[in-house]
Amino acid sequence: MTKWIVLLLVSTTFGFSAFTQTKDADQIKQIFDNVLTNHEAYENLRYLCTSAPGRLIGSEESIIAQKYMKEYFEKSGADKVYFQEFNSPAWKCDSASVFILSENGQQTLLATDALGPSPATSKDGIKAEVIEVMGLKDVEALGRDKIEGKIVFYNRPWDPTFIRTFGGYSDAVDQRAQGPAKAAEFGAVGAIVRSVTNAMDHYPHTGSTHYTDQKIPAVAIATLDADLLSQSLKNNPNLKVHLFIDAEDIEQTNTYNLIAEITGTEKPEEIIVVAGHIDAWHNTPGAHDDGAGCVQAADVLRVFKELKIENKRTIRAVMYMDEELYQSGGNAYADEVGKSGEKHLFAMEADGGGFTPRMFTIKASNGVVEQISSFQPLLQAYGIDEIKAGWGGVDIGPLHEYGIPLIGYGTDSQRYFDMHHSPNDTFDQINFRELQLGSGCMASLIYLIDKYGLE
Amino acid sequence: MTKWIVLLLVSTTFGFSAFTQTKDADQIKQIFDNVLTNHEAYENLRYLCTSAPGRLIGSEESIIAQKYMKEYFEKSGADKVYFQEFNSPAWKCDSASVFILSENGQQTLLATDALGPSPATSKDGIKAEVIEVMGLKDVEALGRDKIEGKIVFYNRPWDPTFIRTFGGYSDAVDQRAQGPAKAAEFGAVGAIVRSVTNAMDHYPHTGSTHYTDQKIPAVAIATLDADLLSQSLKNNPNLKVHLFIDAEDIEQTNTYNLIAEITGTEKPEEIIVVAGHIDAWHNTPGAHDDGAGCVQAADVLRVFKELKIENKRTIRAVMYMDEELYQSGGNAYADEVGKSGEKHLFAMEADGGGFTPRMFTIKASNGVVEQISSFQPLLQAYGIDEIKAGWGGVDIGPLHEYGIPLIGYGTDSQRYFDMHHSPNDTFDQINFRELQLGSGCMASLIYLIDKYGLE
Repeated sequence: MTKWIVLLLVSTTFGFSAFTQTKDADQIKQIFDNVLTNHEAYENLRYLCTSAPGRLIGSEESIIAQKYMKEYFEKSGADKVYFQEFNSPAWKCDSASVFILSENGQQTLLATDALGPSPATSKDGIKAEVIEVMGLKDVEALGRDKIEGKIVFYNRPWDPTFIRTFGGYSDAVDQRAQGPAKAAEFGAVGAIVRSVTNAMDHYPHTGSTHYTDQKIPAVAIATLDADLLSQSLKNNPNLKVHLFIDAEDIEQTNTYNLIAEITGTEKPEEIIVVAGHIDAWHNTPGAHDDGAGCVQAADVLRVFKELKIENKRTIRAVMYMDEELYQSGGNAYADEVGKSGEKHLFAMEADGGGFTPRMFTIKASNGVVEQISSFQPLLQAYGIDEIKAGWGGVDIGPLHEYGIPLIGYGTDSQRYFDMHHSPNDTFDQINFRELQLGSGCMASLIYLIDKYGLE
Repeated sequence: MTKWIVLLLVSTTFGFSAFTQTKDADQIKQIFDNVLTNHEAYENLRYLCTSAPGRLIGSEESIIAQKYMKEYFEKSGADKVYFQEFNSPAWKCDSASVFILSENGQQTLLATDALGPSPATSKDGIKAEVIEVMGLKDVEALGRDKIEGKIVFYNRPWDPTFIRTFGGYSDAVDQRAQGPAKAAEFGAVGAIVRSVTNAMDHYPHTGSTHYTDQKIPAVAIATLDADLLSQSLKNNPNLKVHLFIDAEDIEQTNTYNLIAEITGTEKPEEIIVVAGHIDAWHNTPGAHDDGAGCVQAADVLRVFKELKIENKRTIRAVMYMDEELYQSGGNAYADEVGKSGEKHLFAMEADGGGFTPRMFTIKASNGVVEQISSFQPLLQAYGIDEIKAGWGGVDIGPLHEYGIPLIGYGTDSQRYFDMHHSPNDTFDQINFRELQLGSGCMASLIYLIDKYGLE
């Protein structure tokens, strides 16, 4: 097998020679040999999923998760481990349900979860008629007459013909993100949204919704339950549902990004960020979203330490808080960079699930994209088929404003939205090898960019 | 999204222009829109796994599976559906077990399955001491003195550092394929082989073993059970095990390849084969190996029919019998081609699991590899990152002798050997989208090669 002998000659523009390339290929092979035989990241993820599920900002679970990862960083030899403290609004949800009320008094429970940050209903919940729509424009077309006093039910299915499933998500997610606000604008008393997923099952997929003025209670129901509600409405257009949510806003909470570093040998003041987000929705173990990204970022530090790879710059793992609800961790980190002027070479984020590696996408100048893309042949054998311009990440996103190149680690997307933001995002959905190949790809690209720099 | 607008210009050597390329991109987009919204292949696979598991050559389940697929081909509008009849030896296995016998009389059952075509033990089984080795060379080094009268236990673990898992499989499989014969050569009375898998669990993974002269009973035990046996031997090197197999050779059975065709419009006498193998080991539903390949090959015919794509040549789906044990179906088919001189443009096989698409590999002249590779840019957006020289397939393999180009459909390999040849290869391990993207990739490449021909 010639799998680590890269046959394609890459551009020599950036100080690459055949000799250094062979040395790089050897170093990368060592990295992958290490990650494929080390189980620490996998066991860290097991802990996060089983001992700290539902680790939304402000939750006890989020603190358990951070405490555990802090101890792990210390134990695995990071040079500095510390918290970045900040304040943020938060939200908690204890339960949510929707019942279809039939005329004979029967109640049918639908698999339901609250969208964040939905307000609670009263203890008695809301009983109202339901109007089914296929999107926001339908609400506008129907107008206040047809909407007022009702619960709007957004039921446009996911389009399965997108090849990367993020396309399907983007295509459907306006119903969840803007649907409740639009319904409220026309006098609705609540909103029910079909889960934004291509899976047909009984898992409700939550997620954030953006209110404008009036906040109305809003939930997601599972896709099969959405089909059931839709069919029930065809049978009886006047049926009512009983919607109940127990949730509350938390005006301010004191919270943290967890940061761990291995200090650079030549330019310790220059920073490379490798990140995941430690928070996960209240309803899920958050294995793929984004426990995987956190333990992979931590594994990058471990592998540099263990293989004694000398990083010129400081590599900083950031376990961001609150990607899901208000992105307060990403903003707090970027604000600090803005104030301190601390130099960042680039920031990398893993937040697409711990699936098999496929690509890196870069948000930066064309020149930077070209330089980083030149490393692709060294990573081809490990599953990275493309390095190209594209998405960076939600948490690292605010760093763009400071001219910092952003790199998104991209995995195979086919299974991701089966689990995303649902109780189905469990540890057993993680494949050890797929997870570890991700650590390897991230560590390898960081090794290469740190070694050759960015011009 | 520009996902079906291929930006890279491909070689125009083979009659490609920007115009025909856009038309091709449109046709391919249509194919993927179709396969991602059609559930027939997925439901066919559900049937094969749940109503015809363990469909080894000679079994009743293999006949149920063929009958079902024959009816499906007829229903879905194939122009010809027929059986190719041939005779082959076969084998059946009803049960197998290994117990560790401890000194205090306790018996510990290990997760066991017979290798094919192991002979049966007597009704009382074999009780013998066990000698653990790390490979065939150990047996030679130990010699007849240490081996005779014992059961040889091959326990060299899978090397996890191969990136494509087929590398790990190739590296370890000699223990299963040649280990029992080597043990017999030195007078062993039986062989136990650590399952050839990277998974650590209690599923035994069977597979074929090749006897030379003397046939001794041979089994696989699950990896965790192999660890247990190894530890038990460290505690007590003289322990005995009780090995029992109920199996029998079937000298000759009358059996079939199932064939379905859609007739070509311009050169109906020229054949394009698209294949999977309908047989699966006695211990498994055979979802990924190779129910997936069969239903994908059948889906290629369906999509050509449904979209009214005019294939110049006849496209022939072949559901090969007996890939697992003696490869008699592949040989019978090739023998017939040898006799008839029937012209084949190429043969394609899907037998690497129904996972997300990654590549096509081609066994043919450099010129043919180059021509087919020129289509890669049209398939990049659908997950085909590479088209390159490589493996064709076991069933289509014997066609190589007749100069027929062979194409292997390659999927992401990380999960495959977790399930391969074990009871864990179940329908629920199949992801609908990953399966269907495979049908789409296969249909698209067949469309392109049929349209432009091979020089």
